[in-house]
Amino acid sequence: MDVPFILIVALIAGIISIAMALYFRFLVLKEDPGNERMQEVAGYIEEGAKTYLKVQYKILGLFVGVLAIALLFLPSPLKDSTTYTRIFEDALNWEQMVAYLIGAVGSMMAGWLGMYVGVKANTRAAQGCTISTKKGFDIAFFGGAVMGLAVVGVALIGVSTLYWIVPDPMIVLGFSFGASSVALFMKCGGGIYTKTADVGADLVGKAEYNLPEDDPRNPATIADNVGDNVGDIAGMGSDLFDSYVASIIAAMMLAATLPFLDINLSEYGRFIYTIYPVMLCAAGLLSSLIGIYIIKRTGSDEPGKALNTGTYLSTLIFAALAILFTLIMVIGLNGEETTMLWKLSACSIIGLLAGIVLGFTSDYFTRADRKPTRKMAEAAQEGHAVVILSGFSYGLLSVIPAALGIVLAMVFTYLLAEVFGVAMAAVGMLAIVGTIVSNDAYGPIVDNARAIAEQGDLGEDVIRIADRLDSAGNTAKAITKGFAIGAANLTVLALLFSYATEANDINPGTIAVMDLLNLNILIGAFIGVVVPALFSALLILAVQRNAAIMVDEIRRQFESNPKILTGEEAADFSKTIDIATKGSLKELILPSIISITVPVSVGIIFGVSALGAFLAGAILSGFVFAIMMSNAGGAWDNAKKWIEDGNLGGKGTEVHKASITGDTVGDPFKDTAGPSINTLLVVMSLTASIFLGFLMLFGNGAGLISF
Amino acid sequence: MDVPFILIVALIAGIISIAMALYFRFLVLKEDPGNERMQEVAGYIEEGAKTYLKVQYKILGLFVGVLAIALLFLPSPLKDSTTYTRIFEDALNWEQMVAYLIGAVGSMMAGWLGMYVGVKANTRAAQGCTISTKKGFDIAFFGGAVMGLAVVGVALIGVSTLYWIVPDPMIVLGFSFGASSVALFMKCGGGIYTKTADVGADLVGKAEYNLPEDDPRNPATIADNVGDNVGDIAGMGSDLFDSYVASIIAAMMLAATLPFLDINLSEYGRFIYTIYPVMLCAAGLLSSLIGIYIIKRTGSDEPGKALNTGTYLSTLIFAALAILFTLIMVIGLNGEETTMLWKLSACSIIGLLAGIVLGFTSDYFTRADRKPTRKMAEAAQEGHAVVILSGFSYGLLSVIPAALGIVLAMVFTYLLAEVFGVAMAAVGMLAIVGTIVSNDAYGPIVDNARAIAEQGDLGEDVIRIADRLDSAGNTAKAITKGFAIGAANLTVLALLFSYATEANDINPGTIAVMDLLNLNILIGAFIGVVVPALFSALLILAVQRNAAIMVDEIRRQFESNPKILTGEEAADFSKTIDIATKGSLKELILPSIISITVPVSVGIIFGVSALGAFLAGAILSGFVFAIMMSNAGGAWDNAKKWIEDGNLGGKGTEVHKASITGDTVGDPFKDTAGPSINTLLVVMSLTASIFLGFLMLFGNGAGLISF
Repeated sequence: MDVPFILIVALIAGIISIAMALYFRFLVLKEDPGNERMQEVAGYIEEGAKTYLKVQYKILGLFVGVLAIALLFLPSPLKDSTTYTRIFEDALNWEQMVAYLIGAVGSMMAGWLGMYVGVKANTRAAQGCTISTKKGFDIAFFGGAVMGLAVVGVALIGVSTLYWIVPDPMIVLGFSFGASSVALFMKCGGGIYTKTADVGADLVGKAEYNLPEDDPRNPATIADNVGDNVGDIAGMGSDLFDSYVASIIAAMMLAATLPFLDINLSEYGRFIYTIYPVMLCAAGLLSSLIGIYIIKRTGSDEPGKALNTGTYLSTLIFAALAILFTLIMVIGLNGEETTMLWKLSACSIIGLLAGIVLGFTSDYFTRADRKPTRKMAEAAQEGHAVVILSGFSYGLLSVIPAALGIVLAMVFTYLLAEVFGVAMAAVGMLAIVGTIVSNDAYGPIVDNARAIAEQGDLGEDVIRIADRLDSAGNTAKAITKGFAIGAANLTVLALLFSYATEANDINPGTIAVMDLLNLNILIGAFIGVVVPALFSALLILAVQRNAAIMVDEIRRQFESNPKILTGEEAADFSKTIDIATKGSLKELILPSIISITVPVSVGIIFGVSALGAFLAGAILSGFVFAIMMSNAGGAWDNAKKWIEDGNLGGKGTEVHKASITGDTVGDPFKDTAGPSINTLLVVMSLTASIFLGFLMLFGNGAGLISF
Repeated sequence: MDVPFILIVALIAGIISIAMALYFRFLVLKEDPGNERMQEVAGYIEEGAKTYLKVQYKILGLFVGVLAIALLFLPSPLKDSTTYTRIFEDALNWEQMVAYLIGAVGSMMAGWLGMYVGVKANTRAAQGCTISTKKGFDIAFFGGAVMGLAVVGVALIGVSTLYWIVPDPMIVLGFSFGASSVALFMKCGGGIYTKTADVGADLVGKAEYNLPEDDPRNPATIADNVGDNVGDIAGMGSDLFDSYVASIIAAMMLAATLPFLDINLSEYGRFIYTIYPVMLCAAGLLSSLIGIYIIKRTGSDEPGKALNTGTYLSTLIFAALAILFTLIMVIGLNGEETTMLWKLSACSIIGLLAGIVLGFTSDYFTRADRKPTRKMAEAAQEGHAVVILSGFSYGLLSVIPAALGIVLAMVFTYLLAEVFGVAMAAVGMLAIVGTIVSNDAYGPIVDNARAIAEQGDLGEDVIRIADRLDSAGNTAKAITKGFAIGAANLTVLALLFSYATEANDINPGTIAVMDLLNLNILIGAFIGVVVPALFSALLILAVQRNAAIMVDEIRRQFESNPKILTGEEAADFSKTIDIATKGSLKELILPSIISITVPVSVGIIFGVSALGAFLAGAILSGFVFAIMMSNAGGAWDNAKKWIEDGNLGGKGTEVHKASITGDTVGDPFKDTAGPSINTLLVVMSLTASIFLGFLMLFGNGAGLISF
C-alpha cells in the first residue's frame, strides 16, 4: 500500500469532519432566534463570551509566542530516518516550532468555531422548544456537534498533514504541545470563569435574596451563562482536543522508537504501526458521525437516553470499523507484523471499553437514584458539615472502581503489546471523542436555552421542555466526564512510556530504570505527587477570591440601585462579566507557569529519570484527585437537585440549604480543579518530552544533583 | 566496650522512665480530687474509658492471637550470625511470635497506664485550678507525662532486652509489629470514638438546642470527654509508640543487612551501628526527662509557652547528649567507622530539626493569628461552602512546605550516609517522643478538667484558668501533630529501604530495582496511592454513620424526657457511651483488615518489588492526605475559636455557624482519618517486612502475575 494513500484517508476524514461541522453550523444558524428579549439576552451572552475569548487569545498569543521562541532554540533530537535513532541537529528547530504554532492556532480556531455556534444555538434551541422537544433537542445537539466535529477535524488534518510533510513524530509532538498550551489556558481560565460567576450568583442571588436560578434581576446571571460556554464548550473541547492529539502522538512516538516487541519488524511495518493510531482515529471519527446521525434520528422521545445510546452505538461501530481498517492495513505486512496489528486493534477496543466502564462508574456515583448520592442527600438532614463529609468520602471511594478499570485495561493491553498496547488503549478510548465532545457541548447550550426561555418569558410549558433537555445534558455529562479523566490518564501513562523510550533512544540507558529506591527518583516521585494538590489548591483559591469580588459587586448593585430587585431597571451585566473575565485570566498565570517550570526544574536538578518518576507520581495522585473532585462535585449537585424536586422537604428547608452548601463546594471541585488536572498532566508530560533534548545538557541527563 | 554494657544503658534508661512514670502517677493520685459532683463526673469518664479499653482489648486479643499464630507458621528468614546473610529455617517461628506478643502486650500496658492516670488527673487538675494556674498545670502535665514516659520506657526495655537475648533485628521487627497492630486498633478506634461523640454532641446539643460546650444536660457530654482520653491519650500514645519502635527497627535492620556505605566495616562496627539507634533513643529519653523537669519549673506563667519551650530545650539537650553518647561509642571503632558514626549522629540531629520545621509549618497553618486561618475565618462571612473551600485549599497548600522539609532532610542525610542516614533521621526525629507524647496527653486532661470545672460549679474564675490551660494544650497540639506526621513519614521511608535491603539480602536482586516503567511496579504504586484515599473514606464514613446514631439517641432522650433539658433529671450517659464504644469497634474492623490484606495480596499477586512500589505510593499519597486533613482540620477549629472570641461578630452569628460547619468537617479530618494514616503506613510497611519470607514462596518473590 502506498504511504500517502493511508494518510490521505485520515486527511479526508478530517476534512469531512470540518465540512459536517460547517454544515451543522448552517443548520443551526438558519433557525429562528426567538423574540426580541431572547435575542437581547443571547446577544449579551455572545458578546461576553467573545470578549473573554478575545482577551484570552491575546494573553495566549504572548504565552505561545514566548514558548515558540524557546522551542526554536531547544536542542531537539531529530530522527535519522535510516537507523531510527535520534541525532542532535545544530540547526534551529524550525520544524517543531512551526508545528507548535499550528497546533496552538488549530486549537484556538476549533474553540472559536465551537463557541461561536454554541452561543448562537442557545436562543434558537429555546425557540425550538416552543415547537417540540425534538426541535429543541436537534438544534442544541447540532450546535454541540459543531464543537465535537471541529475538534476531531482540526486534529486529524493537522496530524496527518504534518506527518506527511515531515515523517517524524517529533513534529507531531510539537503540534500536540501547541494544542496543550492552549488547552491549559482554556480549561483553567474557563473553569475559574464559570465558577466565579456561578458561585457568586448563587451566594448572593439565591442564598441572600432568594432569587431563582437564571433570574434576570441577578447581575451575575449573564456572566454565569457565559461561563457555561467558556468552561464547558471551549474549555472541555480544548481539553479533549489536547488529550486526543496527545494519545495519538504518544502511540506514534512509541511506534517509531520502541525496541519493538520481539518481532521481526520491517521498515514498512514500523511505518504502518506509526500511522495506525491516526487511522484508528479516522475510524473513530466515522463512528462518531454515524453516532451523531443516530442520535439525531432517535433524539425525540428521551433526550438523555438518546445521548447515551449514541455513545454506546459509536463504540460498537468503532469496533467494527477498527476491524475493517485493520483488514486493509495488514496488506503487505509479514506474519508476525500482521498478528501484532490485530493485537493492537484489540488493545484499542479494550481501551474504549475501559472508557465506558469509567463513564458508568461516574454515572453510578453521581446519579440521584443510586446509593452514594442518595446517602449524600440524606446526610443533608444532619446539616451542612455532614453533607460535605459524606460527599468527600464517596468521592474518595469512587476512585477505587475507576482505578480498577484503568489497572485492568493496562494489564490486558500490556499482555497483548506491552507499553505500545497501553498507548493504543488510550487511542481507542479517545477515538470516539467526536461523540463525547458533542454530548458535552450540548450541555451548556441547553442550560443557556433554559435561561433564555426563562428570561424571554416563553411560559411554563416551554421551560419544562427546556428543563428536560437540560437534565439530559447533565446525565450525559456524568458519563463523558469519567470518560475524559480515564482517557487523559491512559494518555499520560502512554506519554510517560514514550518519554522513557525517547530518552533511551537518545542516550541508551538514560532512563532504563526509574528505581524508587534511588533518592533522585524518590524525590522526583514525591514532588510529582504533591503538584496536583498544589494545582488544585491554587485553582480553588482563585475561584474563591474571584467569587468574593463578584459577591461584593452584586451586593453593591442591589444596594446602590433598589430598582434592580424590583425588575424596573436592568442590572449592570458588563461589570460582572468584566470581573469574571479579568479575574480568571489573572489567576491562571501562576498555575500555567507551574505546569511548565516545575517539570523542567525537576529535570534540570534531579535528571531525566527523576522527571519520569515525577510524571508517574503526578499521574497517580492526579488521578485520585481528579476522580474524587469530579464525582463528589457531581453527586453534590444531583443530591441538591433531587431535594429540589421535592424530596426530604424540598426547596427552602434547612436540608435544602445544606445541600446547596454541598453543591457550592462541589462547583470548583467538579468544574475547575478536577478537570483541569487532566490538562495539567498532559501539559507536564508533553513538556518533559519536548524539553528532553535540552535536559540532556545537564549532567548528560543525570541532572545537577545526582546521588 | 562490652556488648551487654551498651544495651544495659538503654535498659536502665527505660527502667528510669517507667520509674518516673510511676512516681508521677503517685504525685497525681495524692492530689485532692475535688467535690462530690466533680468526682461523680470524673467517675463516669473513668468508667466509660475503662469499659471502652476492656472491650477494645478483648477484640484486640482475638486479632493479635490470630496474627500471632499466622506469624508462627510464616517462613521467616533468620540471620546467619557469621555471614550476615539470611537463611530460612524450617522450624516454627517461635522467637518472632513471642516478640510480637510482647510488643502487643507492652503497647496495651503503656496505653492502660497512661489512660488510667489521665482519667484520674482531670478532676485533680480542675481542683488544682482553684488554688493556682501553676497547680492545675502541674497536675495535668504530670498526668500527661505518665503516658509519655510509659511509652518510651516500655519501648526501650522491650527492644534492648529482646535484642540482648536474640541478637537479630528480625526479633525486634516482631516486637514492632505487635506494637503496630495495637496502635492500628487504638488509633482508628479511638479516632472514631472521639469524633462520634464530639460531632454527635455538637450537632444536636450545640446547633439544635443551643447548649454550651460541656453542658451536663447534653447526654453525649461524658462520651465526648471519654473520647478525648481514648483518642488523644491512648490513641496518640500508641501511635507514637508504634512510630518510635518502627524507626528503631528500620535503622537496626538496615545496619544489620545493608551492603554498608563503602567503608571498611568490622563485625564489631556493624554491631555498634545496629545498636546505635537504641542508644540515641536512650539519649532522647534523658533529654525528655530534663525537658519535663524544665517545663515543670517554668510552667506557671504561660503554660502554652512552657510546653513549647520544653520541646525546644529537649531538642538542644538531645543534640548535646547525642554527641556525648557518640563520643563514648566510637571507642573501639576504626577510623572510617568513627567518621561514619559521627555522620550518623549528624543525621539524627538533622531529623530532629526537620521535625521542628514540620511542627512550625503546622503551627503556622493552624494558628488564628496567621494568614491561612485568618483567611478561613473571613471566608466564613461568605457562608458555609466558602469556609470549606478555603480550608481544603490551605490544607493542600500546607503540604508544600512540609514536603520540602522532608525532602531536604532526606537529601542531607542521604548525602551523609545514604539510606541509613534517612533511617537515622527518623530515629532522631522520634528521639524526644517522650516530650511529644507528654505534651499531647496534657491536652485531653485539661480539656476534661475544664468540663469537670464547669459541671462541678467551680465558678467563672476557675473555669477561666482551666480555659487558659486548655488553650495551651491546643497550641502544643498543633506542633506535636506536624511532628508526628513527619516522624511517621520518615520512619516508613526508612522501613521501605529496610524492606528492600532485606529482600535483597534473602535473594540478591529481588528488589534491586523498583522500576516505574515495569508494569508490575507501576500497578503496585497505583494501588498504593489509592489505599490512603480508601482508608480515609472508610474512617470518615464510619464517624458519620456513628454520629448519626448518636444524634438520634440524643434527640430521643430530649424528646422522651423533657426534664433532662431543664436540668431536673440527669441524661442517660451510659447509652451514648455504649453507642460510641460499640460503633467505633465495629467500624475499625474493615480498615484493619485492609491494612494487612492489601499489602500481602499485592505481594502475592504482583511480587515483592511491586509491594515495595505499593509502599512508596502509599507513603507519598498518605503524606499528602495526612498533612492536608490535619492542618485543614486544625485551622477550621481555630478559625471557629477566633470567631467565638468575639471577632467578626462572634458567637451566634451566621459567620459563627459557618465556622462551626468548618470545624465539624475538620473533626474527623484532623482527629480520625488524618492521624490514622500514620498508623496505616507503619502497619503496612511492617506487614511487608514480616511477610517477606512468605511472599518469596510465590514465583520466588516475582508474584503470580509477572509482566
